[in-house]
Amino acid sequence: MNSVTMYKLYSMQRSGNSYKVRLALALIGEPYQAIEIDILRGESRTPEFLAMNPSGQVPLLEVADGRYLAESNAILWYVTVGTPLAPEDRIDRAQALQWMFFEQHALEPSVGAAYFWLALVRGGRDLQTHALEDWMERGYGALQVMENHLKTHDYFAAGRLTLADIALYGYTHVADQCDFDLSGFPSIRAWLRRVEAEPGFVPMTRNPVLNPAYAAGA
Amino acid sequence: MNSVTMYKLYSMQRSGNSYKVRLALALIGEPYQAIEIDILRGESRTPEFLAMNPSGQVPLLEVADGRYLAESNAILWYVTVGTPLAPEDRIDRAQALQWMFFEQHALEPSVGAAYFWLALVRGGRDLQTHALEDWMERGYGALQVMENHLKTHDYFAAGRLTLADIALYGYTHVADQCDFDLSGFPSIRAWLRRVEAEPGFVPMTRNPVLNPAYAAGA
Repeated sequence: MNSVTMYKLYSMQRSGNSYKVRLALALIGEPYQAIEIDILRGESRTPEFLAMNPSGQVPLLEVADGRYLAESNAILWYVTVGTPLAPEDRIDRAQALQWMFFEQHALEPSVGAAYFWLALVRGGRDLQTHALEDWMERGYGALQVMENHLKTHDYFAAGRLTLADIALYGYTHVADQCDFDLSGFPSIRAWLRRVEAEPGFVPMTRNPVLNPAYAAGA
Repeated sequence: MNSVTMYKLYSMQRSGNSYKVRLALALIGEPYQAIEIDILRGESRTPEFLAMNPSGQVPLLEVADGRYLAESNAILWYVTVGTPLAPEDRIDRAQALQWMFFEQHALEPSVGAAYFWLALVRGGRDLQTHALEDWMERGYGALQVMENHLKTHDYFAAGRLTLADIALYGYTHVADQCDFDLSGFPSIRAWLRRVEAEPGFVPMTRNPVLNPAYAAGA
């Protein structure tokens, strides 16, 4: 980003997908303007917001006047180009992408959905009883794949902290707030601590959230 | 790929995720060695396969001796680097990635799951009655986002055919084989025909599949 203009990020404090982008921007020390969009209050479904992002989702980044980029992981690649978080080597980059696509089809629709409905939406558990079993099964499956990798690797790609770790950290670090028990995943828990020890690390939110479990840390 | 070695791709004929990679390789005219892995017969769960890909999924690409890359969309970026299918411009690339991540969290877990259980697995419909309603709702939601974009764009990113189209084509072109009715999505149907008119295009499979609807085309 040039120094005259600053990124404008539409984001929600308690959204794991939004947090990924804020975490990456914090780690690379890039200043940005955050506009809070509370999807629980319908703020991502207003005509104004839908004109910027027809999917009605956060995060959303204004990349040029009137041009917007959606999808947390695409935004991650965009804002970190040229930084150590975005591997340049062809195989390293492919492996980072591999884990980021894994995150979006295996972790986000299971742990991400469980987090949204169980930790954020009041009464959400009762609305989603039919889906909960599937989320748990698929979520634990994804966590096991991550655990197996982390048994022999400190990070997910390129032998160092990359966008892949940031993408996976987004929902993994709140899994224990939505019924997932991480006690059987020691390598994941050690990796969570490694990410949190990075210079520049910021937590998802310091704001009060609905679920009091958050206060205990993830 | 250098000319001495040829890509080795572990793939399943009737898998939409596998097909994406085969379609991209066909469009760029890159020869490769295909090894058929029938996941319906458990061939992706053998000790030998799990040693290559702990996720037990196809497609899987051998990128170097004993090094493997998983996740269809990561493989797409890897094999098409330097070709027109993979945009180099920073915003074009971000928008292609945006749609490819959308595909993995919105289309693949809904239409992809419905295709697998309804079109490929004999008796799968009865096993998945609890999930079908969710797949339909989320799948139609994803198709509507695509339809809205295609009303004013011929392709998904960069104003031309890119990996984003290939990724989305994988499951969209079989949606009508797993209960989705595309008659209300004229822009999607026109886009499917545009992709199929590309020089080098290959269909998913010429092999007989379980669902006779395939013979009628997608």
